[in-house]
Amino acid sequence: MIKAAVMGYGTIGSGVVEVLDINRELIAERAGEGIEVKYVLDIRDFSGDPIQDKIVHDYRVIADDPEIRIVVETMGGVEPAYTFVKAMLTAGKHVTTSNKALVAEKGAELLALAAEKNVNFMFEASVGGGIPVIRTLLSALTADEIEEITGILNGTTNYMMTKMSREGLEFADVLRDAQERGYAERDPSADIEGYDACRKIAILTSLVCGRQVDFTDIHTEGITKISAADMKYAKKMGRAIKLLAVSRKTPEGYAVFVAPHLLSPEHPLYGVADVFNAVFVHGNVLGDAMFYGSGAGKLPTASAVVADMVGLARHMDCNIPVEWKPEKITLAEFDRLENAFFVRTASGRDAVEAAFGRTDYVDAGIEGETGFVTSVMTEAEFKAKAAALDVRSVIRLGNR
Amino acid sequence: MIKAAVMGYGTIGSGVVEVLDINRELIAERAGEGIEVKYVLDIRDFSGDPIQDKIVHDYRVIADDPEIRIVVETMGGVEPAYTFVKAMLTAGKHVTTSNKALVAEKGAELLALAAEKNVNFMFEASVGGGIPVIRTLLSALTADEIEEITGILNGTTNYMMTKMSREGLEFADVLRDAQERGYAERDPSADIEGYDACRKIAILTSLVCGRQVDFTDIHTEGITKISAADMKYAKKMGRAIKLLAVSRKTPEGYAVFVAPHLLSPEHPLYGVADVFNAVFVHGNVLGDAMFYGSGAGKLPTASAVVADMVGLARHMDCNIPVEWKPEKITLAEFDRLENAFFVRTASGRDAVEAAFGRTDYVDAGIEGETGFVTSVMTEAEFKAKAAALDVRSVIRLGNR
Repeated sequence: MIKAAVMGYGTIGSGVVEVLDINRELIAERAGEGIEVKYVLDIRDFSGDPIQDKIVHDYRVIADDPEIRIVVETMGGVEPAYTFVKAMLTAGKHVTTSNKALVAEKGAELLALAAEKNVNFMFEASVGGGIPVIRTLLSALTADEIEEITGILNGTTNYMMTKMSREGLEFADVLRDAQERGYAERDPSADIEGYDACRKIAILTSLVCGRQVDFTDIHTEGITKISAADMKYAKKMGRAIKLLAVSRKTPEGYAVFVAPHLLSPEHPLYGVADVFNAVFVHGNVLGDAMFYGSGAGKLPTASAVVADMVGLARHMDCNIPVEWKPEKITLAEFDRLENAFFVRTASGRDAVEAAFGRTDYVDAGIEGETGFVTSVMTEAEFKAKAAALDVRSVIRLGNR
Repeated sequence: MIKAAVMGYGTIGSGVVEVLDINRELIAERAGEGIEVKYVLDIRDFSGDPIQDKIVHDYRVIADDPEIRIVVETMGGVEPAYTFVKAMLTAGKHVTTSNKALVAEKGAELLALAAEKNVNFMFEASVGGGIPVIRTLLSALTADEIEEITGILNGTTNYMMTKMSREGLEFADVLRDAQERGYAERDPSADIEGYDACRKIAILTSLVCGRQVDFTDIHTEGITKISAADMKYAKKMGRAIKLLAVSRKTPEGYAVFVAPHLLSPEHPLYGVADVFNAVFVHGNVLGDAMFYGSGAGKLPTASAVVADMVGLARHMDCNIPVEWKPEKITLAEFDRLENAFFVRTASGRDAVEAAFGRTDYVDAGIEGETGFVTSVMTEAEFKAKAAALDVRSVIRLGNR
């Protein structure tokens, strides 16, 4: 029996305990041995909970117990998760985490420490919940140069966009609804400002290029400015608005950014609705591929963590090398990226044409404003031209 | 440098040589060492081709060369591929194949032989072309009981269904078009009769249940009876016709069959068009997931073969256990599976209602016939009831 510990008994941590229980037998078969949770680290006591006897409050109990081989970190946030995970790896224990903040910031360092200690540090659940995108990149798409990864990586915002589109509601109303359903937290900024998606695309880009992508370098726009009027225009154009995290290899380096996009029905991510996540990948020989599934939620995310535990159990005595060096990569300058833009402005067509030349107009029946789509141009060029107009809203077009 | 051999220099075999060349450096990095093709086995000579000097006509040259560590089999068909692959594994060489006929029939045996010789037998490219569905099942979705796999596993037929739907053409015309484009072979029966999809779902089901699923036990219907009139009804219903390979865990055993289905826009496979393939998976804790990509084509399929070569290079000295025992599994009886059916009949509504009770009618404006959708019932029940009618066409509804 392999002894494990779970640090953080919140939604995902308790889901891990549940999945290990639900699929006990098949997990034992696939791991080569049963997996038993010996400790659960949490500041709370969980009196009356079946795991009550396993609760410890001091992470050193786990680090100091030589019987513990696998540690799950599902606490979230950089500290104290970082201190705890480092202690576990240093003590020669394998670790899996669902914590994108930790992985985005400390992934390279923790992978190096794991290699040094001949253990493994896995983090499948940190991106895309139950979608096995990290394992796919690291061990399946190994014949390809990955030229693009574009993802719907945040379930909360995708739920909100879907609901705004279907029901014609305003942003504030769907946010309240998402909070009531437990999809959005009381402080929803990590989701709606795009910070969560930003950390996830930083992790995926780091894995693709094998070096450190600092999430603070990534241009990030959330969905807070999207309105019911924008959705009307989207419908008129036959497009859907999705918060995309984009990472593209360009001659000037990796172009990485997070922003809402208007997708046409031909885009593989167009139909990804509700809390689902999806990752589009383009490889230089593979061509287009897309992976879709539950991006969040207790059991799907726990499924990914437990799959990591099975992977760790199968590689108890050897480190699986992962190329993610701590050297920081410089991203392509955001101002030089090229996009087409949909613009809503209080200015008239004369002003629009003076600034942008001939454009494609979109009329969603909203009085007192002009909607139009620009040709493809750099961000800098767009900014310069748009300065002449009284702009109400800008959304990039996602074309393939 | 790892020395490899390619058996069969057709579309995929030459694609493998090409991918190894295009991505030489990154493959060497990921494999830990460069991979060089030393021999190409083919009955032809390929005079003037850059690989001309590597051509051998006798597989024993490869089997007897101790320098060869990895062998690629891209010949297709059970024999002589089976004899050759067995010889390579017996000689202690790792093998990867794209050959679904070989894997469906001899997979369990070849895996056992590989384990005995402490080498690996991989076959990612045998199902879903470039979509890494096999690696996902074997090493990513390991925390789940897989309750359903439903796939669009044949690109040729999906291209034909898409074209019939978009252009209102008859079956014979799109078949000719597919043949002219090289999507369908001169003898197209493997594709259009569903035999190809049948072998692929047999492989996936074998991997899910860990035992042998004989493809001859799988109820298989192709697309040859689908007509322009059927497409008119599909449009009227807002559905798309797709050839699905279905594998569902039921209390009576695995229900596995291949048949055209009418999919609603809510179905994750509805939007999969042209030559693309996709695999829908439902896990008991993961929930719904979907993997989409190029299911065929030279480079995407070669990408999967070369990814296997990288996997083989990373596991040169150890066998990765794969659970696929040669004991045959008994599938659920086809007659007892439950479906809803769309029916076109020359009989009138009175006869329809006498046979099926109240049904939902679909009128696509085709004179002299009645279109209707039954409630959910077993195949046997449907067959018995439909016997009273003059039936022109039957297509199952794919609901989720």
